[in-house]
Amino acid sequence: MASTAEHDAMRRALANALRGPRGVNPQVGAVLLSPGGEIIAEGWHRGAGTPHAEVDALSQLAPGAARGATAVVTLEPCNHTGRTGPCSEALIAAGVSRVVYAIADPGDHSSGGATRLRAAGVEVEAGLLADEATALLDSWLTVQRLGRPHVTVKWAQSLDGRAAASDGTSQWITGSAARADVHRRRAEADAIVAGTGTVLADDPALTARADDGSLLPHQPLPVVLGTRPVPDEAALRRHPREFLQYPGNRSAGGLAAALDDLRRRGVQRVFVEGGPAVAASFVREQLADELLVYVAPVLLGGDRLALDDIGVTTIGDAKRLAVASVTPLGDDLLLVAHPTTPPAAVHAAHRAGGHVGRSSSEGDE
Amino acid sequence: MASTAEHDAMRRALANALRGPRGVNPQVGAVLLSPGGEIIAEGWHRGAGTPHAEVDALSQLAPGAARGATAVVTLEPCNHTGRTGPCSEALIAAGVSRVVYAIADPGDHSSGGATRLRAAGVEVEAGLLADEATALLDSWLTVQRLGRPHVTVKWAQSLDGRAAASDGTSQWITGSAARADVHRRRAEADAIVAGTGTVLADDPALTARADDGSLLPHQPLPVVLGTRPVPDEAALRRHPREFLQYPGNRSAGGLAAALDDLRRRGVQRVFVEGGPAVAASFVREQLADELLVYVAPVLLGGDRLALDDIGVTTIGDAKRLAVASVTPLGDDLLLVAHPTTPPAAVHAAHRAGGHVGRSSSEGDE
Ligand SMILES: NC(=O)c1ccc[n+]([C@@H]2O[C@H](COP(=O)([O-])OP(=O)(O)OC[C@H]3O[C@@H](n4cnc5c(N)ncnc54)[C@H](OP(=O)(O)O)[C@@H]3O)[C@@H](O)[C@H]2O)c1
Ligand SMILES: NC(=O)c1ccc[n+]([C@@H]2O[C@H](COP(=O)([O-])OP(=O)(O)OC[C@H]3O[C@@H](n4cnc5c(N)ncnc54)[C@H](OP(=O)(O)O)[C@@H]3O)[C@@H](O)[C@H]2O)c1
Repeated sequence: MASTAEHDAMRRALANALRGPRGVNPQVGAVLLSPGGEIIAEGWHRGAGTPHAEVDALSQLAPGAARGATAVVTLEPCNHTGRTGPCSEALIAAGVSRVVYAIADPGDHSSGGATRLRAAGVEVEAGLLADEATALLDSWLTVQRLGRPHVTVKWAQSLDGRAAASDGTSQWITGSAARADVHRRRAEADAIVAGTGTVLADDPALTARADDGSLLPHQPLPVVLGTRPVPDEAALRRHPREFLQYPGNRSAGGLAAALDDLRRRGVQRVFVEGGPAVAASFVREQLADELLVYVAPVLLGGDRLALDDIGVTTIGDAKRLAVASVTPLGDDLLLVAHPTTPPAAVHAAHRAGGHVGRSSSEGDE
Repeated sequence: MASTAEHDAMRRALANALRGPRGVNPQVGAVLLSPGGEIIAEGWHRGAGTPHAEVDALSQLAPGAARGATAVVTLEPCNHTGRTGPCSEALIAAGVSRVVYAIADPGDHSSGGATRLRAAGVEVEAGLLADEATALLDSWLTVQRLGRPHVTVKWAQSLDGRAAASDGTSQWITGSAARADVHRRRAEADAIVAGTGTVLADDPALTARADDGSLLPHQPLPVVLGTRPVPDEAALRRHPREFLQYPGNRSAGGLAAALDDLRRRGVQRVFVEGGPAVAASFVREQLADELLVYVAPVLLGGDRLALDDIGVTTIGDAKRLAVASVTPLGDDLLLVAHPTTPPAAVHAAHRAGGHVGRSSSEGDE
């Protein structure tokens, strides 16, 4: 059983984790406690190539000062010699006598730290504040487990499921509160994806903007799916980051290939902004982990559907959703939902096929 | 200003109103208070051809016993000689010195009671608990103001606005809690309407049933819209009430004509159960006062839309809704909404064109 001091230390370790950057490596935090339960050192991981959180904490101490200490870590100490040595070895060498961690390391190469520690006589306790640590590492865990980024698919619709009136006009179905919410969530993603249909029809900037229209500090990487070229005068070409374009073709695992390439580039969270064909493909291929559906209190009728065909032919095959929340945003409603069918993984066998849009087209980079 | 005793009396009058039947005539209740604020008599309206509530209360008293009393009534006393004499005259004749009522009588012929009372020196106060009285008379007021029954249009849909999978299967999109809610609400209507498309595709019983499948005590009148005949073996022909059928054609005010005929038959609340074409027509013609949209947490894609074309061609003409409530029902959501465009009235000019389905087809009634 973890002590109160260890509980408090785990909360602190979770806070420490957030001090590191979100990127290809997980955010991890650590706290070292004296045998009497006092904090003697703290650490966190500052990104690929830098010491892991436990080693960062140990480095704060004089040699021998960690003898008999308890290490409280948000993720199982690794057992893997990468750019840094395995943390389990470092903890054993420092004479740490007890290790408490929140969640197991899902990595093929890095897991096994707990076993190694126990073999060396270190007391190990797993699962303290596991839910909080899982929430913290949400998208990183998706990458580890499924081999691809976490995918959020967003669309806006009328109550009757239309994205536009029959003449194509759609600005604005939803109100300003819903649009501000989209921008805030865009800014939390690493990449933002739109199909060529949307790029050609709407000429979106694909930037994350504040209420006053100014750019938010973090701009996700803009990504276009489709074979049609992005016009030279497209707003997308004025985005602060150069966009990537993937064919993404429906038949041949094109979405998986695009996600695989994005993961290799360090993208952990993808925000799919549509349109109806691209959104439907992510749903059909079970590559949507989270759906954000902004429902405006209007009826439109007509044939401009917000979601195209998803390959369901009979009611038993309907894509069932677990609705996590229904939130009013101005006059609109935001439904956050998760497909209940298990998500599809992506394997490295998929070839990328991506090219840098701006450079390929402007030839200057 | 109404006194506390008058407030209490109005609550009691509202409860009395509910003791009368819901039908072509409004439910009205009355309480007579002595000059000291004691209840001396109560009354309510028991339906067409019977005394109005005020007269019913006066009839409880010995001649002269109402002198100086206050009459508290849920609806403005009428000024109209119909099957009963005007209530305003009866109150004046009885020597009532003060009248407090909740809402004005919207009728062309019957209104003017307050003016008549004041002219005779009676103190009149209007508007006490007006919201409660309005809610009580909801559908009756619609009939008075718009010349047609109050119309609720219901449909069930997937989150993406589909009513069925592409092979036509749709049982069940929504869960048992939503279906039970539909039956409960059906039982509150006077008539339940379905298009021939739905009758031919689904063979619905159009009965209001309890959870165990047994018939609820009140069965609304089943009504079919469309020109195609109802098959001899249709479940509808086993309904405890014989159905009516109207052509309801889209072009020539067919829906208004059907509503007009239903009103003449005493129908005040119509529950439209679809399908997509009929629901869309009611919305398009502004003949839907209330929408009940049961949204199941599934995605279906495909072309089986829950709501057909509603005549909106550009986003500025979208039918805007005021969402009154969003209620979870099992895994589903029920949205209750009201169109924000003013509802359309129906004028007696519309011809009915209805015939009794069972008799016309079986020739036995
Ligand atoms: N309601 C909303 O939230 C929302 C959001 C965005 C857009 N929209 C509307 O959607 C409309 C555009 O619709 P759309 O369906 O043409 O656009 P889309 O979904 O943005 O683009 C479809 C195109 O994406 C490419 N693509 C690449 N991989 C794909 C895959 N796996 N599955 C499907 N497509 C793939 C194809 O392009 P190639 O043919 O070039 O290969 C395809 O033609 C616009 O009118 C826009 O206003 C609505
Ligand atoms: N999701 C739901 O809640 C729900 C509810 C009910 C039904 N459904 C589904 O809807 C499908 C049937 O669709 P549907 O569109 O054919 O059926 P529908 O709307 O029930 O019927 C359409 C027919 O109604 C008649 N009609 C009369 N007046 C009309 C008017 N003003 N506007 C439109 N139609 C009028 C016409 O019949 P005539 O051609 O005979 O003149 C028309 O063809 C079925 O598959 C059923 O399962 C879904």
